[in-house]
Amino acid sequence: MKPLTALITLSEHPCFGGVQGYYQHESVVCAGPMRFSVFVPPQARVGPVPVLYLLAGLSCNEETFPFKAGAQLHAARLGLMLVSPDTSPRHTDIEAADANWQFGTGASFYLDAQVAPWRQHWQMATYVTQELREGVVQAFAACPDRAGICGHSMGGHGALSLALTHPGLYQSVSALAPMASMMQCAWGLQALRGYLGPDPVAWAQVDVVELLRAGARVPPLLIDQGLADTYMADQLKPHLLEEACRAAGQPLILRRHERYDHGYHFVSTFMADHIEHHAQRMKSGT
Amino acid sequence: MKPLTALITLSEHPCFGGVQGYYQHESVVCAGPMRFSVFVPPQARVGPVPVLYLLAGLSCNEETFPFKAGAQLHAARLGLMLVSPDTSPRHTDIEAADANWQFGTGASFYLDAQVAPWRQHWQMATYVTQELREGVVQAFAACPDRAGICGHSMGGHGALSLALTHPGLYQSVSALAPMASMMQCAWGLQALRGYLGPDPVAWAQVDVVELLRAGARVPPLLIDQGLADTYMADQLKPHLLEEACRAAGQPLILRRHERYDHGYHFVSTFMADHIEHHAQRMKSGT
Repeated sequence: MKPLTALITLSEHPCFGGVQGYYQHESVVCAGPMRFSVFVPPQARVGPVPVLYLLAGLSCNEETFPFKAGAQLHAARLGLMLVSPDTSPRHTDIEAADANWQFGTGASFYLDAQVAPWRQHWQMATYVTQELREGVVQAFAACPDRAGICGHSMGGHGALSLALTHPGLYQSVSALAPMASMMQCAWGLQALRGYLGPDPVAWAQVDVVELLRAGARVPPLLIDQGLADTYMADQLKPHLLEEACRAAGQPLILRRHERYDHGYHFVSTFMADHIEHHAQRMKSGT
Repeated sequence: MKPLTALITLSEHPCFGGVQGYYQHESVVCAGPMRFSVFVPPQARVGPVPVLYLLAGLSCNEETFPFKAGAQLHAARLGLMLVSPDTSPRHTDIEAADANWQFGTGASFYLDAQVAPWRQHWQMATYVTQELREGVVQAFAACPDRAGICGHSMGGHGALSLALTHPGLYQSVSALAPMASMMQCAWGLQALRGYLGPDPVAWAQVDVVELLRAGARVPPLLIDQGLADTYMADQLKPHLLEEACRAAGQPLILRRHERYDHGYHFVSTFMADHIEHHAQRMKSGT
């Protein structure tokens, strides 16, 4: 377990009996400063608590979940730590990074880039699963062996992909309005080509549907999807995830909600169910 | 009861079984466009529900409470409508309006300005207590005779001041980290001079402590204040409110919270108690 290098506390705020904090450190794997947020629940004063990683969507950052999702109330009740990384490195020397809200800054898709210039900084899979995770265990009262992962939209694909490619690392997995398959939507394909190059063999190593098809499995999934989500038909395609899980025998609860859209009023509405899903599985250890 | 002129739906989002909406209309009393947000709880499908007005603080707007306070979860449970106006008119022809975050745009203090050029647009007391209130009853399933008012910081003073100057209009009143007395802090004095002119007699007509001293009363107050709030000593001064209530025989529960600061992680933590305070009083009608 390595500590986070040059950890800076940007701010800390008491919240539901715990503390919501915002931090920055010098990431080794991303070769530059990275920000993340942590909610430490009151139960952490007694001993280490399980950690739920929350991965936000395109153009969001480490403040999005703590400010808009209302998750702390539920996490404080059930004793979960919440950790939300930024959605990509920022302020690098890559000029093109800020040109497109679907690629580059705020749009890492939580994968490890293999193509220059991105590969020098955009190492988000290794960052989230190793550097950030080990650092959080060092710096906060986090159980080293109890973790869950959840994400929204791009972060939903990221959560599922990281869980599928790191067997046993996360005891609980869920998503809100996730992209089902990067290889089967325009946002995803643009990112796969830009970060991984032209070879679909490399794409399949991170694509959720392809990983399921290849035999990867995760703990029983909870997915919520609003049926008035304007991105559902073209980008998210929950039916692809449903079909892949069915074919693979991957347990899945996919709940479709009439009238709900893609935003954080949708996310906050179903946050309690996700926190409970993770708390139950992390505490039982299954 | 007058309808809201030229009401435009900016967006509506299902949320906790109800709908969180953002709206704009042409305000007659503010002589220009005004924005506000409304959370309609699921209970409003059956019949009119009580309305809680939420007044935000300096530099905030009609999105601040719905995005950051987490109040919808509690309002959906208890059947309250939530209405949050913008914190001032915007985009007027007053050039100086955007120069200072403590005065002008985003800083109405919820009073009716008497000094040019502000008096043409900055008529927020009349706006909140009459035009917006009547319009909400016309446009949404809101009880005409069940209303509460709550505010944060500048909006806390606004909520108390509007309740004190409109006896019987609000069945329930509360505030989070309110300014106690505009006349006894720099932010308040700047606004009083700018909006009302140099005469302290006019100031006392809106100042919460002076109104209590002059005999105005409101339903029992619930106030929360964080003791690590950086504005407490210089601007908010909760002890002034405490002393004025004690001298006036005004029922007050003032809760001081160690370590909590001024922001919305503080507000969201205590929001459930405020929603319950209002729901109880509005439903019992006392």
